[in-house]
Amino acid sequence: MQAGYSAWMSDYPTIRLLPKAEARAIRHGFPWVYANELVMDRRTRGLTPGSFAILEDAERQPMGLVTVNPASRIAARMLDRDPEAVIDGAWLRAKLSRALSYRDALYDAPFYRLIHAEADGLPGCIIDRFGDVAVLQPNAAWADAMADEIAAALVELAGVGTVILNGTGRTRTQEGLTEETRLLQGAAPEGPIPVPMNGATYMADVMGGQKTGLFFDQRPNHAFAARLAPGGRVLDVFSHVGGFALAALAGGAASALAVDGSAPALALAEQGAESGGMADRFATRRGDAFDTLAALEAEGERFDLVVCDPPAFAPSKQALDAGLRAYERIARLAAPLVKEGGFLTLCSCSHAADLTQFRAACTRGIGKAGRAGAIIRTGFAGPDHPVLPQLAESGYLKTLTYRL
Amino acid sequence: MQAGYSAWMSDYPTIRLLPKAEARAIRHGFPWVYANELVMDRRTRGLTPGSFAILEDAERQPMGLVTVNPASRIAARMLDRDPEAVIDGAWLRAKLSRALSYRDALYDAPFYRLIHAEADGLPGCIIDRFGDVAVLQPNAAWADAMADEIAAALVELAGVGTVILNGTGRTRTQEGLTEETRLLQGAAPEGPIPVPMNGATYMADVMGGQKTGLFFDQRPNHAFAARLAPGGRVLDVFSHVGGFALAALAGGAASALAVDGSAPALALAEQGAESGGMADRFATRRGDAFDTLAALEAEGERFDLVVCDPPAFAPSKQALDAGLRAYERIARLAAPLVKEGGFLTLCSCSHAADLTQFRAACTRGIGKAGRAGAIIRTGFAGPDHPVLPQLAESGYLKTLTYRL
Repeated sequence: MQAGYSAWMSDYPTIRLLPKAEARAIRHGFPWVYANELVMDRRTRGLTPGSFAILEDAERQPMGLVTVNPASRIAARMLDRDPEAVIDGAWLRAKLSRALSYRDALYDAPFYRLIHAEADGLPGCIIDRFGDVAVLQPNAAWADAMADEIAAALVELAGVGTVILNGTGRTRTQEGLTEETRLLQGAAPEGPIPVPMNGATYMADVMGGQKTGLFFDQRPNHAFAARLAPGGRVLDVFSHVGGFALAALAGGAASALAVDGSAPALALAEQGAESGGMADRFATRRGDAFDTLAALEAEGERFDLVVCDPPAFAPSKQALDAGLRAYERIARLAAPLVKEGGFLTLCSCSHAADLTQFRAACTRGIGKAGRAGAIIRTGFAGPDHPVLPQLAESGYLKTLTYRL
Repeated sequence: MQAGYSAWMSDYPTIRLLPKAEARAIRHGFPWVYANELVMDRRTRGLTPGSFAILEDAERQPMGLVTVNPASRIAARMLDRDPEAVIDGAWLRAKLSRALSYRDALYDAPFYRLIHAEADGLPGCIIDRFGDVAVLQPNAAWADAMADEIAAALVELAGVGTVILNGTGRTRTQEGLTEETRLLQGAAPEGPIPVPMNGATYMADVMGGQKTGLFFDQRPNHAFAARLAPGGRVLDVFSHVGGFALAALAGGAASALAVDGSAPALALAEQGAESGGMADRFATRRGDAFDTLAALEAEGERFDLVVCDPPAFAPSKQALDAGLRAYERIARLAAPLVKEGGFLTLCSCSHAADLTQFRAACTRGIGKAGRAGAIIRTGFAGPDHPVLPQLAESGYLKTLTYRL
């Protein structure tokens, strides 16, 4: 264990902003300090990734307590605006219990994103809760180092029996963290966990699935699809474990077809449909999304609602142009499958593509398919995914629903 | 009655784009032609406002059927991409019945915005439906001239008994239309109409109220406030007829205080609370919103949820800077009234202020009040307010909910 976790304030070293740094933005709530904004002397470069420090501005005024990672582009993340704060179990429990009381007031059942990183006061730290099981994604070095303390606090406050560390994903690599998945508390669940959302049951593979096993972020957008679904034929492309398809069936869709490249994801979708008593209206088709959209068009299939929820095509600024072309192509391939007067829901979870760019790409694609329509809803991630206003511009999830 | 309403295509005159016009944007769905994009010869200048014409590009290729108003900055509005379309009762009925089937599928009860102008294919034309009563706002000359035909089609298709023309508002002035409110069909309703939304009952004064008497656009945002409300004290500033306050009470708020400058609006809010059996938890306070926020702060009042839904502070580009300062001021005055861990919902219905600008103004105001928080939801108008993607950037209604 690193030094400083329950140390006195005086134990924390000091790091200092360069005069050119955006001190004003940081003072107004921006939570990150980039490596090129810090005085990178040998002492700062030598700090253990994930250790704590007091951040000072260029005039040596303390600004708050940060966690430091000299190996990351985000070299410091604000933990507490109080430079005298001590990052210990009590501090952690205060953050968790604030996040918990908010979610418990908002949701009928304990299935939600419990901690959404910066906006919940635990920078780079994601915790999803599946009833008795919590899955921790420590995407910043400090949270990785404190994983055991976080798990203990989760057991104590949320009363969960099992805490799993899911250490996969690109973000960890950028922080210099390795890939690993392991149990922090309790026993590994036997098989997937049934998750109730929007009247459907989803199966979450918390040990071996993508990210934490289920994406809670689309919940309000699933709910809207369910409102459009009654009596209709629904196509859910990039379905993962059946997010939109199962919600639509619960909302009264006549049938839903889920398309995904992953056989395990489709198997979980089928189990979910089975568990919700809707297997007779549900079908899956495994394959590449682009190819399958084209094939369905060639087969003359038409749907009342088509949803495409692809992985991030534009995960970085470098990938933006190619990403926007991919969104346009998805829209162009999907639009012909929508009946006249039907609905097309297009999603992006790309940080780099903002709402205006994503909307333009989708509208272009629909136009190239010879279709036109109005946008009836713009949706974002649900309220268990708060965002700091200072980071809101890059709010990653956007969904657009067109009536064609 | 003007010539041409049921005429042959060949009866419609032709108007032509200048070479500098944005023909490509129009071809890709932009629905307006500005006066400075048209060949404004004597014949075009002489066209009756609200009459129809075939729009040609600079190379004399027909682009569609438009309605013309040489007196307006928006000199032509696309009615039909088919230049051979004829604007008559059948054409009107087709648009209305498409809009109607969509709303009827989406809503349990016939209370909604039935026609939202361009995105519903009837440019400049607004129709709100309150059960048996429809209120038409013809904000473009063609819809004003065809008001009787629209009313007849509404009676036929929607089965309403009463159609009221509400000819008030700034937009009509820009089109050269006069202020007037009159009955088009049926009898004027006796007293306000009870409108069920989100479990509450609202009272809509369709003859004498603001706009069409009730704003349907905030429905999903009211619903979210209701989710935050259980057990809490709620403050609804610029409440009009009690939009957020009554929804919050229906959602289980312990109490709600509605603040508005208009005594008639507050009286309707009280009637709504009475009708919903929640009058004992409801109070009103008449006064200037800025003054009342400051007074409540001085009185030491604190709330679990504060909502501010002001009129458009930035209705035009010229008013943008002053408008953003007003939004900032509202946020600065409202934030101190929110309990620690409570919620602040801030709304803008300003076309000129986009989401990024509005969010920055609100965040600045909250910061100046010495508070900070995360955005837990960004909402827009409900799905009975579709927008053309080409006009979506100016989608007017935005609501931000912060947890402070």
